[in-house]
This record gives sequence, structure tokens and C-alpha cells, in this order.
Amino acid sequence: MSEKDFTPISELSRYHVIRNIQTIVSKSEPDLAHVVHGIGDDSAVIRSAGQSALRLSTSETYVEGVDFDLTYTPLQHIGYKLVSAAISDIFAMNGIPESMLVNIALPNKISNEMITLFFEGIARASRVYACPLVGGDITASAAGLVISISINGSAHEQTICYRSGAKVNDALCVTGDLGGAFAGLKILLREKKFWVENGAGREFQPELDDYDYVVRRQLVPQARNDLINVLGQQGITPTSMIDISKNLLRDTMQLTQASGVGVKLYSGAIPIALETRAVADEFEEDVDQYALQGGEDYELLFTLPEDDVNRLVEHFKDFVVIGKILPRSKGMQMQTADGNTLHFDTSDME
Amino acid sequence: MSEKDFTPISELSRYHVIRNIQTIVSKSEPDLAHVVHGIGDDSAVIRSAGQSALRLSTSETYVEGVDFDLTYTPLQHIGYKLVSAAISDIFAMNGIPESMLVNIALPNKISNEMITLFFEGIARASRVYACPLVGGDITASAAGLVISISINGSAHEQTICYRSGAKVNDALCVTGDLGGAFAGLKILLREKKFWVENGAGREFQPELDDYDYVVRRQLVPQARNDLINVLGQQGITPTSMIDISKNLLRDTMQLTQASGVGVKLYSGAIPIALETRAVADEFEEDVDQYALQGGEDYELLFTLPEDDVNRLVEHFKDFVVIGKILPRSKGMQMQTADGNTLHFDTSDME
Repeated sequence: MSEKDFTPISELSRYHVIRNIQTIVSKSEPDLAHVVHGIGDDSAVIRSAGQSALRLSTSETYVEGVDFDLTYTPLQHIGYKLVSAAISDIFAMNGIPESMLVNIALPNKISNEMITLFFEGIARASRVYACPLVGGDITASAAGLVISISINGSAHEQTICYRSGAKVNDALCVTGDLGGAFAGLKILLREKKFWVENGAGREFQPELDDYDYVVRRQLVPQARNDLINVLGQQGITPTSMIDISKNLLRDTMQLTQASGVGVKLYSGAIPIALETRAVADEFEEDVDQYALQGGEDYELLFTLPEDDVNRLVEHFKDFVVIGKILPRSKGMQMQTADGNTLHFDTSDME
Repeated sequence: MSEKDFTPISELSRYHVIRNIQTIVSKSEPDLAHVVHGIGDDSAVIRSAGQSALRLSTSETYVEGVDFDLTYTPLQHIGYKLVSAAISDIFAMNGIPESMLVNIALPNKISNEMITLFFEGIARASRVYACPLVGGDITASAAGLVISISINGSAHEQTICYRSGAKVNDALCVTGDLGGAFAGLKILLREKKFWVENGAGREFQPELDDYDYVVRRQLVPQARNDLINVLGQQGITPTSMIDISKNLLRDTMQLTQASGVGVKLYSGAIPIALETRAVADEFEEDVDQYALQGGEDYELLFTLPEDDVNRLVEHFKDFVVIGKILPRSKGMQMQTADGNTLHFDTSDME
């Protein structure tokens, strides 16, 4: 291998790596008649021969030191959070999770008691989301703990939600509030710094009562099955949907690009909890940045025609309209509290 | 956490870790009506509401330095092999693979060109097994390369094969030949030792033409879709089936324990390729041990009533009868070439 054939991964965005893989794979695809939707949405969509329900599958890998930090994250919370994150991708298709597989690569420093805690978290999430653990794999790891979670689920052809269906004039809606998980991370990282500087051992448990809400948003996020249930009961189907795993700006861009539309966000309408504001104040930072750019809230971002917004609000209170879908030529913009309009350069977000 | 709450993983077998997880999870299982078969076979089996086909899912994680070694394994072969290994678990249920998800955790030392090679191997396997890549996840890795592959497939209720259906007097059959992948590993490890001692860089490509067969058995094993196709065409359903990923003895034990039966293996009937014998001779080792204890051949081990053996052999030549199912009380035994009978202590194999 010559030096010029070595493009370090660190020089490429995740987006470019995925695009490259799509190109390689699409060159030699087998018969795809049953693949309704492959790479490029929250879950893959498969049709079984002669069956009307669509099957969803999604899989995520989490690496110690990259995606989670054992120094401030109890293992049962990691189990719960990773399941929530993976299942959120099924809800984002307006689907129902049906089963999960969990693979773990275990370094020697992990004890059986730690594995027990981890799987207690998995089991709790399994109960909350009615999604049984049906298998997986265990292997050794020469380095850190690596966890992969795969979820299988199903959706109906008439009600499945892709990222690609948003229409001009639809309302852009979001559940819950944003930026809380990021605020929780700020608190946990400050605590970690304190432990490291003060030499506390791993028995040390931080005092985090004052920050309970934001820390819980970071450690044990809840995937929004409540919205999916109400949508099903009321026969309301969003025109498009995505879960906010990366952050609001990035995921709004993903949804609008997939739909071939533009969008205007209303800055003042973006929901932020008081507890999140308090943390931003304490750090003397701009809470709007927490909401726009902080990740891991696992709220659902979706688009609805105005009539459906009015129908939904009668049965489900925990969402707000934060923007409006525009023609593609308008790009991605945000109306700020002082009445100005910001334009985003989405090429930076890839 | 006190010291007595820390049982190092290295002190436990994989079997015990899995048993522990099953216990934790079973304590709090959600409604399992749609889970036909969870942990404990080659794949999980799920029934979708109102549908007759059963859905299979299986997932495996592979860690650099534990499950594969980049120093002697071309990345395109790793991609191909890992897909073969995962898909083999679907065939072992007498099922058909339908889609796959691939997750990779990438260390910085991996270049984009290396990822391309890896996914070219994935794409080739995808074509061979008619199983499209539909999604997955990419994350960073602080240490080595970690790969998780999940396969979804389907099977029919009347023809699905569990490990648990073997009946007394059934013939125990195996496809292909055994020990070849282990012989290939011996050769590759010897080459690696040579490179390390002689300071060859990573551009060095070994001369392995003389060992082509066994090296291919190790690097690019083929999952046995050919047997599954013939079984389907001829309407023959094994009473039980498992793929040989661990090794013949271990997987025979798994199958017979799941079925609640004993077994007698015929040592002289176990299929071994001439090329595998040649390697064992060169290393002055017992080739029977390669076949019994070497792993990763990904052949199918299955049981059939004698009539079905005669029907199958008319349409499929690449299998042999290597044993007979006995009552459970007989345990696991092997008739050797010189007419003696060995008894195995299966408690050692967990």
C-alpha cells in the first residue's frame, strides 16, 4: 500500500465515509426487491414476501471513551440509554420495536457484577419499551468496552414516516425540550474534573441532586413512544420524522435535505427547560446554543400540515411548533427573538 | 464497590456470562407472545402479528486482535468472512438471509482505502448470499477496529430447524470437510512469526500458493447456502441443525444437549481434506484434533432420519454421516478407527 492510498479517517467526515460505503455497496447490489428503504434513514425498511407489514431494523455501536465514559456513567444507565437511543430510531419511522440483540466486547477490567448492572439497565428499557432482548454476542476486547445494539421492529405502509416527506407550509414540530442532555453532560464533566483533581477513587458517587433533571436527560434519556402511541390512536401521520440524536440544527438539515425543502426555525419557540437555562447561566453560556447544537436529547422532530397540528394538540401536549417548511430555494434559516433572520450554510454541517 | 463484588471476567466462561444475562433478562421480560425463540439458538425467532413467516435475527461482534488479525488478513477478506459467519447462523435455522446491518468502530490508523477494501468484501458476500446491506453505524474507536454484523432473515414454521429437535437413531451429518480453517490459521500464524522476526513491513504479502486451499478456508469461508437450497427444493427438513463455528465437539455437544439426547461419533467418517492432512503432517500434529477441535469451518451439522439421508444424497453430494443420535443416558462418545469407544466429559466443554 503506497502512502497516497492512505487517507486518514480523521481527515474525513462521517458523512463522507458513509457516502463512500454507499457507493461501494450500490455497485454490486443483489436483488433489492424486498428492500423498501436501505441506508439513509433512521432504520432500514424491508418487506417480507407476501406480507403487508414493513420490517424495520437499526443497529448502533457504542465505544467506551468515545460514546460513553465509565467514570461518570453508572453501567445500568448505559444499558438503558443505549437501548433508548437505538429504539428512538424505530419510533422515528413511526414504527414499533419488537426485539433487540445486544453484542458486547468485554475487556478484562469489566467484572461480572458490572455486566449484571449493564444488563439490568437493558432489561429495564426492554420492559419500558416492550421490546424483548432475544440474542446477541459476547466477545473479548483487547481495549475498552464496546456495545452494539440492534433493534428490529415493524411499521405499516400507510403510516411509516421517512425523513423525506416534508411538504412546503408544513409545521416543523418537536417533542419535549432541547439542550437538557448537553447541560447534564456539562455538569458530569465538571464533576469528573473535580474527582480527577481530588483523586477520588471509583467508589466516589457525586452529589448531583441540584442537577437531577439535566443529569437524567443525559444519563437515562427516554425515547418518545408516547408520541408514537398517540399518533397511532388518533390516526395522525407526520409527513416526515427524525429523532434528534445529533442536534437540532444537524437533524433539521437531514430532514429538509431528504425532503428537498427549505425551513425557517423560530428561535423563540425552541423549547428549553428552566433547569437547562440554570446550567447555562451557571457556566455563563448561551442556552440557545445548548438547544441548537447540544446532542442526545432523543426527542422527535416531525412535520405536519397545520390541520393535523390542531388535531394532535388535543391529545398530546408535550410538543411545540418550532418552524415552518419552505421551498428548497429558501435554504435553512432562523428567525431570532429580535426579528432578524439568520441563514445557515448547511454545507458546514456535513 | 467492594472487592468481593468484582468477579473478573477472565475467571468465568462465556457460557456462564450468557447464563447470567439470561437470568437477569428473564426476571423482567415484557410480553413475549411474538418471541418464538429468544437466546439459545443460532438466531432469534420472531413472529410478526398476523403473519405466518418467522423472522430470524442474529448479530455478532468481532474485535481486532481477538477475532481477527490485520497483520495477516486482507481487509476485503475480513468483510467477506464476517458476513459468511453471521449468515451461517441464519442457514443453521434453515432460513434465508434478507438484509444486513454493519457497524464499525474505527481507530485513526484505519484509512478510507482500508474501509473501501473492507466494504468491497462485504459487498461481494452480499452478492453471493443475495443479502443486501441496508444500514448500520459508524463510530470512532479509541483502540482497535471493532465490527458488528446483524443479519435479518426469515424461515417457515414447518421447516425451521432448531438445535433441539434431534431424535434417537437419527443420523448426524456434516457438510464439506473439517479442520481446514484451523490448518489455514496454523500457516498464517507461521507466516506472521516469520514477518515479525524478519522485520517485514505491512506492504509484505506472503507466498502462500502451496497452502491455497487451507488459507482460503481460514480467510474466506463459505456459508452453506447450497445445502439450504437443496433442502428447500427437495422438501427435506433436518430434525436439528447448527453451524460449526466453534468446533465439531463443542457444537455437537450444543446440539445434543439442546435436544436432550446422546451421540456416537464415528472418528473414521469425519471428513478431512488432503490439504488439511498435509499441513498437520508438516507440523507433526494429529489431524483428527484439527477436525474435532479446530474452529471456524462454518459447515452445517444436522440430524436426519435414515430415509431422509438416502433422499438427500441423491441431490446433494457434499455431506457425510459422521455419527448416530443415542439416548441421553449414553452421553457423548466416539468410536475410533481401532474399534475403541471414547467417552467425552461434556462438563469440560462449557
